[in-house]
Amino acid sequence: MSNFESPSPASSSLSAAQLPAVCILGLGLIGGSMMRDLRAHNVECFGWNRSSATVEEATKEGFDASTDLQATLERAEASRALIVIGTPMTVVGTMLDAINEHAPSCGITDVVSVKAAVAAEVSARGMEERFVGAHPMAGSAQAGWSATLEGLFDGAPWVITYDLAAAADAAGKPVPERWIEVFSQVANLGAALGSQLIPALSDHHDASVARISHMPHLAAYAIAAAGEAGGPLAISLAAGSFRDCTRVAAAAPDMVMSWCENNTEPVLAALDDVIERLTAARTQLATEGTAMYLAKTGQIARVRYEARPAHRPIFRLRVGEGDWINQLELAESVGGQVDVF
Amino acid sequence: MSNFESPSPASSSLSAAQLPAVCILGLGLIGGSMMRDLRAHNVECFGWNRSSATVEEATKEGFDASTDLQATLERAEASRALIVIGTPMTVVGTMLDAINEHAPSCGITDVVSVKAAVAAEVSARGMEERFVGAHPMAGSAQAGWSATLEGLFDGAPWVITYDLAAAADAAGKPVPERWIEVFSQVANLGAALGSQLIPALSDHHDASVARISHMPHLAAYAIAAAGEAGGPLAISLAAGSFRDCTRVAAAAPDMVMSWCENNTEPVLAALDDVIERLTAARTQLATEGTAMYLAKTGQIARVRYEARPAHRPIFRLRVGEGDWINQLELAESVGGQVDVF
Repeated sequence: MSNFESPSPASSSLSAAQLPAVCILGLGLIGGSMMRDLRAHNVECFGWNRSSATVEEATKEGFDASTDLQATLERAEASRALIVIGTPMTVVGTMLDAINEHAPSCGITDVVSVKAAVAAEVSARGMEERFVGAHPMAGSAQAGWSATLEGLFDGAPWVITYDLAAAADAAGKPVPERWIEVFSQVANLGAALGSQLIPALSDHHDASVARISHMPHLAAYAIAAAGEAGGPLAISLAAGSFRDCTRVAAAAPDMVMSWCENNTEPVLAALDDVIERLTAARTQLATEGTAMYLAKTGQIARVRYEARPAHRPIFRLRVGEGDWINQLELAESVGGQVDVF
Repeated sequence: MSNFESPSPASSSLSAAQLPAVCILGLGLIGGSMMRDLRAHNVECFGWNRSSATVEEATKEGFDASTDLQATLERAEASRALIVIGTPMTVVGTMLDAINEHAPSCGITDVVSVKAAVAAEVSARGMEERFVGAHPMAGSAQAGWSATLEGLFDGAPWVITYDLAAAADAAGKPVPERWIEVFSQVANLGAALGSQLIPALSDHHDASVARISHMPHLAAYAIAAAGEAGGPLAISLAAGSFRDCTRVAAAAPDMVMSWCENNTEPVLAALDDVIERLTAARTQLATEGTAMYLAKTGQIARVRYEARPAHRPIFRLRVGEGDWINQLELAESVGGQVDVF
């Protein structure tokens, strides 16, 4: 196949050398871990956090952190930094407003777990040409500066969105140079941190994570609650199937709801799909005495999942050149990754 | 608490010494493994299997096995053996008919994964006074003589039913001596194999396993199928939650259906519970923008499950003496185990 090649390590030193300064808004698990990695790569990096406690902790470790958002953004503007929004979804709009006011030239990315809601905030402010969304899929159980780790993103999926380019391409229009520049910066950031870049349109990303993460978390909650409703004997007899099916039900409701509440339509669609399959099984069991259709469908799905390739197909991408947007679309269509040159 | 004591190892050598000869019908994973353990404990043990290949394999290893059901049962009758029905549910009725004809005095137990369906076959033939059901909860992924293992039951739950005793006690009638004798034999068998005896009424057992095993398997099938319906991008982004929630979806549909098809009402009730919880979450998410009620309920259930005691409470039981039936009921009510004296 000419479209992709065998896996190879990401050329992270090259990518780091090509990075501008990076300004991180929000120094939690993701933003803080990113700061650690960038310092290790000798990339200029500074950040803002609302909480002075976090800023003190980071400063004590020699990191360049501040509680002054305006000053941080003015510095980003002066150094033409790439701005990473590492805050919860609830304050993304506030961050974008501040960026508009104090850092009007900087490229912007984000690390929020949902992508369409962020893109909508960006579009509402007409900031699409300097925004490329991202979702580094690493570490979710712990939070805060104390949980930050160097190397957190190494080998992890790093979804990168390309909505503007796909829309321009579909309309037969050129992709703005400014956007291509930001795309390169965000791709290089992910590659520098050792992540696997997976291109996806925001809507497709959200529909996917609804089905393989948000809905399974909700299902795990339901299985756990229905199991416990069986009483002490049921829990005493619980073995591997209950243990594994409900493992993620231990996840913090606030975290899972921060995903679901900002991804309602895709989560509703995924929930409806599961409810329909269970209801059909219920009907078949009640009327025919078996639920074999669901069992066979589900087993095939799981076995296909287990049999997926150990490595994602890799597409080589020369950003801004030739049919590069088609390469992004092809990579997305197979869940592949891109190596950026 | 005077009703139970700290965990202690089962007194298995004592139990083995008290065992009669054991006749096993069906030498698959459970029946065959039981035969290995009993030989290791120097308990007289012989068995029957429909397939001559299995009998040849067992015989080659020096086990006492036959394809002649009538001869095997006549031998059981002559030695007043305890008969273990180790066949699939589908032929339990046939086995009971043969036992009625050729081994009319022997005590009977079974190792089928559902208990009410077996009890119904027993009742239909008026054989309740010499029957005590069991469900050794060990090893389910592999099948056949080649999968048999010595020590398979060591430390595993061994559900033992006591329907007749509970009914007699509730009616203020004495429990038949013959039944008490069979209960002792079955309890000693489980204890000799190192299992943890958990008393349960057949209906309660079935409702419990529907909630902590059968329904979770069906839910895993549905989550796997709905995940795969998200396409290659979704599967490419699948991480821990999808992997763990769908692990048991790899289970053979025939095995899972052998449970569900013989436990339809409890499985329907458990399915309805999960469907209702997911549907309520769907409604809350669609109307209020959150599914927090399910999330909080499910997290609490999982955390309670994780916080359950490392060891089940143990009730000391002198079979046939004093308030022993109440002890069985108390043990069941907390999912506890009994040590039999």
